[in-house]
Amino acid sequence: MSTKQTIYYTFTDEAPALATASLLPIFGAFAKEADIELKLTDISLASRVIAAFSDLLPADKQVEDGLKFLGDLTAQPEANIVKLPNISASLPQLYATIKELNAEGYGLPEYPENPQTDEEKDIQARYSKVLGSAVNPVLRQGNSDRRAPAAVKGFARKNPHSMGKWSKTSISHVDYMREGDFYSSEQSTTMETAQTVKIEFVAKDGSVEVKKSLPLLAGEIIDSMNISTKKLREFFEATMQEAKEDNIMWSVHLKATMMKVSHPIVFGHAVTVFYKDVFEKYGELFKEIGVNPNNGLGSVYDKIQSLPEAKQEEIKQAIQDVYKTRPELAMVDSDKGITNLHVPSDVIVDASMPAMIRNSGKMWGRDGKAHDAKAVIPDSTYARIYQETINFCKTNGAFNPVTMGTVPNVGLMAQKAEEYGSHDKTYEMKADGVMRVVDANGNILMQHNVEKGDIWRACQTKDAAIKDWVKLGVTRARQSDTPAVFWLEDARPHDNELRKKVETYLKDHDTSGLDIRIMSYNEAIRFSMERIIRGLDTISVTGNILRDYLTDLFPILELGTSAKMLSIVPMLNGGGMYETGAGGSAPKHVQQLMEENYLRWDSLGEFLAVAVSFEELGIKHNNEKAKILAKCLDKATGKLLDTNKSPSRKVGEIDNRGSHFYLALYWSQELAAQTEDADLAAKFAPLAKQLADNEDKIVAELAAVQGKPSGLSGYYHMDLNEVAKIMRPSATFNSALATL
Amino acid sequence: MSTKQTIYYTFTDEAPALATASLLPIFGAFAKEADIELKLTDISLASRVIAAFSDLLPADKQVEDGLKFLGDLTAQPEANIVKLPNISASLPQLYATIKELNAEGYGLPEYPENPQTDEEKDIQARYSKVLGSAVNPVLRQGNSDRRAPAAVKGFARKNPHSMGKWSKTSISHVDYMREGDFYSSEQSTTMETAQTVKIEFVAKDGSVEVKKSLPLLAGEIIDSMNISTKKLREFFEATMQEAKEDNIMWSVHLKATMMKVSHPIVFGHAVTVFYKDVFEKYGELFKEIGVNPNNGLGSVYDKIQSLPEAKQEEIKQAIQDVYKTRPELAMVDSDKGITNLHVPSDVIVDASMPAMIRNSGKMWGRDGKAHDAKAVIPDSTYARIYQETINFCKTNGAFNPVTMGTVPNVGLMAQKAEEYGSHDKTYEMKADGVMRVVDANGNILMQHNVEKGDIWRACQTKDAAIKDWVKLGVTRARQSDTPAVFWLEDARPHDNELRKKVETYLKDHDTSGLDIRIMSYNEAIRFSMERIIRGLDTISVTGNILRDYLTDLFPILELGTSAKMLSIVPMLNGGGMYETGAGGSAPKHVQQLMEENYLRWDSLGEFLAVAVSFEELGIKHNNEKAKILAKCLDKATGKLLDTNKSPSRKVGEIDNRGSHFYLALYWSQELAAQTEDADLAAKFAPLAKQLADNEDKIVAELAAVQGKPSGLSGYYHMDLNEVAKIMRPSATFNSALATL
Repeated sequence: MSTKQTIYYTFTDEAPALATASLLPIFGAFAKEADIELKLTDISLASRVIAAFSDLLPADKQVEDGLKFLGDLTAQPEANIVKLPNISASLPQLYATIKELNAEGYGLPEYPENPQTDEEKDIQARYSKVLGSAVNPVLRQGNSDRRAPAAVKGFARKNPHSMGKWSKTSISHVDYMREGDFYSSEQSTTMETAQTVKIEFVAKDGSVEVKKSLPLLAGEIIDSMNISTKKLREFFEATMQEAKEDNIMWSVHLKATMMKVSHPIVFGHAVTVFYKDVFEKYGELFKEIGVNPNNGLGSVYDKIQSLPEAKQEEIKQAIQDVYKTRPELAMVDSDKGITNLHVPSDVIVDASMPAMIRNSGKMWGRDGKAHDAKAVIPDSTYARIYQETINFCKTNGAFNPVTMGTVPNVGLMAQKAEEYGSHDKTYEMKADGVMRVVDANGNILMQHNVEKGDIWRACQTKDAAIKDWVKLGVTRARQSDTPAVFWLEDARPHDNELRKKVETYLKDHDTSGLDIRIMSYNEAIRFSMERIIRGLDTISVTGNILRDYLTDLFPILELGTSAKMLSIVPMLNGGGMYETGAGGSAPKHVQQLMEENYLRWDSLGEFLAVAVSFEELGIKHNNEKAKILAKCLDKATGKLLDTNKSPSRKVGEIDNRGSHFYLALYWSQELAAQTEDADLAAKFAPLAKQLADNEDKIVAELAAVQGKPSGLSGYYHMDLNEVAKIMRPSATFNSALATL
Repeated sequence: MSTKQTIYYTFTDEAPALATASLLPIFGAFAKEADIELKLTDISLASRVIAAFSDLLPADKQVEDGLKFLGDLTAQPEANIVKLPNISASLPQLYATIKELNAEGYGLPEYPENPQTDEEKDIQARYSKVLGSAVNPVLRQGNSDRRAPAAVKGFARKNPHSMGKWSKTSISHVDYMREGDFYSSEQSTTMETAQTVKIEFVAKDGSVEVKKSLPLLAGEIIDSMNISTKKLREFFEATMQEAKEDNIMWSVHLKATMMKVSHPIVFGHAVTVFYKDVFEKYGELFKEIGVNPNNGLGSVYDKIQSLPEAKQEEIKQAIQDVYKTRPELAMVDSDKGITNLHVPSDVIVDASMPAMIRNSGKMWGRDGKAHDAKAVIPDSTYARIYQETINFCKTNGAFNPVTMGTVPNVGLMAQKAEEYGSHDKTYEMKADGVMRVVDANGNILMQHNVEKGDIWRACQTKDAAIKDWVKLGVTRARQSDTPAVFWLEDARPHDNELRKKVETYLKDHDTSGLDIRIMSYNEAIRFSMERIIRGLDTISVTGNILRDYLTDLFPILELGTSAKMLSIVPMLNGGGMYETGAGGSAPKHVQQLMEENYLRWDSLGEFLAVAVSFEELGIKHNNEKAKILAKCLDKATGKLLDTNKSPSRKVGEIDNRGSHFYLALYWSQELAAQTEDADLAAKFAPLAKQLADNEDKIVAELAAVQGKPSGLSGYYHMDLNEVAKIMRPSATFNSALATL
């Protein structure tokens, strides 16, 4: 396949797909002038479903498997993919898709929930590849490069979001375990040769149970660690008593979503310690009726509904009595009485801590007001950076979005690096004994004494991913001429293994003139914060968890949201994927378009991603015109933000299409005005003039269609011609664009 | 003069002098075995007075000028001086000395307060050389090396002093200026050639007043800086309002003693801002009656005594009214109603901040109880280290004397380095204008716009002092195999000048295998604290002010006091002075000895200093016996501390003399027990046995004299034979010692 000078733009689902119908023609028309082609690749849910059965369909119904195509493309150094948000299909969405397609005559089989025959099993297998998070694992073949684009940063500086003041007498703080946690118990080693190691549990009686066989590559780092449930529960109890004494709200901050296995268990302990009176009294009953504390106190309220009313009331009263002996709990929703301990996924550390820091260090109390709080983050590995940040804010006051610098991130993510607490290597111990990792020759690589209830987990990080991550760190430092800090904790065995590699691989690169440092987490965040308040930027080059945490923390402080970050996955093999936003595919926006022909989807993410996509092509192919297109697109985006031409929310105002028009106007004006390439300037000057002259007319044409049903027929399987008609209603704009 | 293998032990005044009569014979007897002589050099006040008039006295009354002798000695590489605390004579002490000497027939002239004739002027000049701090400036010909000796550190670990717990919800904090202070305005330059610069004030009308001509050496660093009184007063007001709102006690921490000129003025502003209602209303009256706010609120109470009773009451009431509108003031003495703003020298930052940190971050309130407090330290240059320490304690809890490491100091002090705020280059501006430093060619080296009331100051640091300081830092790092951190602030122009020299001079030394770093203050203290809580030691290599601050901060946290620190001045020319303690010469102890023949002076400082003095001789002359004496003396001191044989406070218990006996016992036992030098062991074994066998007898003989007047006749001019008789009352001990 020829990927030269080609950008593969994904056609996905719902609002982003609709927006593409309006936006891609603009991108395409402008790109042509730099000899770049934008190819649309359909990875919509409907297309993926059809592709899964293409071999069984008549020729006119067959489609190319767009996802497979892009997946193969990621292996090519030339890959340049702009990835829009897509549907991670649930079963109901799959059913609806099948129904819609069959109404069009596809004749697809129904999804067999309980497949019996081989045929049914084959059908289910084909559908399974389409369900759930099916796209990202195929396309994210690299590490992570996230940053606030200049236009977004500039906009935030000019239009600063609200930021709560910090008092020097704030009593908010982070509390974390000092022993018995993952941080204190971590062990790590680097494999010299490729081999399959075994994770084993040795019981008290000496019997050995192989929990898992794990094939490892040469140079791969493997870690293991354990959290003592006894110490964890003692710690929770101590923090609650301390909070009660100090008259401060109590809260726990975990990541039960990402650390899918370990953190829900930790959350469950928080629940049973806080409500220990209730769980001691009703423990047996709760077991019978299926209460799972890992699902939060909500699980208690849910499950007791099967009990007689009087018993329910008794238990509810017992819960109320607990509040008299415990510190006040931070609330998720004080109106509805939903506390921090209600649902494990309500309070997610990477979002909740930045929110607290942005809100003067306060969380919401039962009275609906903001109060200082003790933020309990049991494992100390990453908890300490939040305490450092809080101390910093107490000392220096709140960050100022107008003047603060930025902290972009280069995150280790490729080849499933550092997936701590993910499900496949995390175990809740069922008995006392020893957990160990044994190599192919029977040597014990690592081992921990464990007790029943402890959580033991292992984690892998591949050498190739690390090598690429170091390269990406250096590249970003060079390209943005910004100091880069590798966040590697002196006291962490895993990080020390990593550090050896980092120090080795740094030598492979020309780092002359660059400021590249290695610092422990607290040092690194402090260094970054000391710089940020002086308006200076610092790249954080971090592992996977800190990638996740920091790309929320700093964006939320700098921009008020992490949704406006540029998210790039430079592929291990040299290509690049440019993600256009962390948001979903926005079904409600489609509904609004259907009902009143108004699309409020904001294509900011697409503008930003495409600019980087152009820039990358420009660098790779020495295509100077592409670089200028990129530069001018960024300027146009900045102007669009400044002039408030982003989509509004209501009929009669500017929507997604109007916003695209202004992008085209500003972009062409920037291209006409630039002096680096006279040819380009000459090409775009007439368009700029035409668009500017017809601004009122075009805006009127775009507004004219609003307020009545759009007539969109397909939902999952959109008719591109129909959509194009709906999304490009301004003849004046269309013909102007066609002059290019 | 031959100084080979000689220790010059100073005979000073009062308690230390009395103790010398008992202790020196022990040191001397032991030293002899290592071919070391201890020579007593009289620098007592009386001796210095006599020496000042020796040329006018009859031959039998003449004395050698001991201080001059030692002063000359400091220029010799062989100098080895043990310096005990001496009297810094006030006028009343001088009068008493003259009286005592004349009673002995010296026929000294009276001190002429208003000299008229040439003769009187000569007399006054002679006496002037004796008054005040006359000894240290002559002897301190080097930088500073202060550390907690192993024995003292070990004792503190085994007998930890009290240490207040830190709450994670403490609201105590440090507040400092963010602009307009010395830190923000500092300018600095290094002289390329030796020349005389001028400090000038340029008035608004362009007229130039030369404030001072300053001869500078080549390579000398000169700084200047200014504090805006307007900003200072605004800052004070803001902190008071904030403290009132946040319901936290207010306190100010300055160093009105060391920064003799600048800090009393700053203190005065704190007073007039806090009591602004009073000073606004009675300002004119206060001027008339001579109130000086720089002397604190005490000055108001003092001066209004000249007013009619009714007026006094009115003013007192006005002061009371202020307390209703202001935050609570931290107290110095709540019983007596003495607040933090009463006297400028009551609260001295280097002692008050460690005391606060040791006391859970609390200061004393009006109710006599400890409360959280806002510690206002206006100039941010060094203030920030205390906030860093407070944040650290909030996060990690109080320091633990049992497990914590130590932070010794190597301080830049030689040739009057970095004497910020000292009187000779500090000016309170009398008008708006420009302060500038102009070189010999008329080039302006530095200049500041100043306003009336601002405090402008300059400061010098000589190249030779810096060179020696770097060497001392490296030497200490090597000798104690401990990481050394140069505390040099990135953002300080002065420190950047210093840094260039440090980086250059470090190359003159073999630093292979040493861990020597340069860090900004916050980084440096954080690094040191992170290590200290892990039991690790870190040498702080600092400028003069931080030398002063840190040798209180860390000792107070580590040892409960800074009095037990070893204080060494390695002379620029290669010799060494060993100071035996920071305490005074203790007149009350002499009184107790006179009345009940009990001397509670603790000679710990002498034990420690002499051990280092021996060690240094050992190193310099390859005298292995001296090194062993030193090592065993340190062990003996450790044992003495462990067995609680330091002087008690009451008659009937062990006093200074008994303590000396035990030192001799333990020291001889250690020497007998060591196996490095059989000869020494053989020599000391009999003495060890004899002392041990006679322990009860000797202790009884020493105790027998207690409880009745000692018969000491001279006070300033002690009769050495008489003192020896009083201080060595145990015939058994004396004869045992004589067997050596």
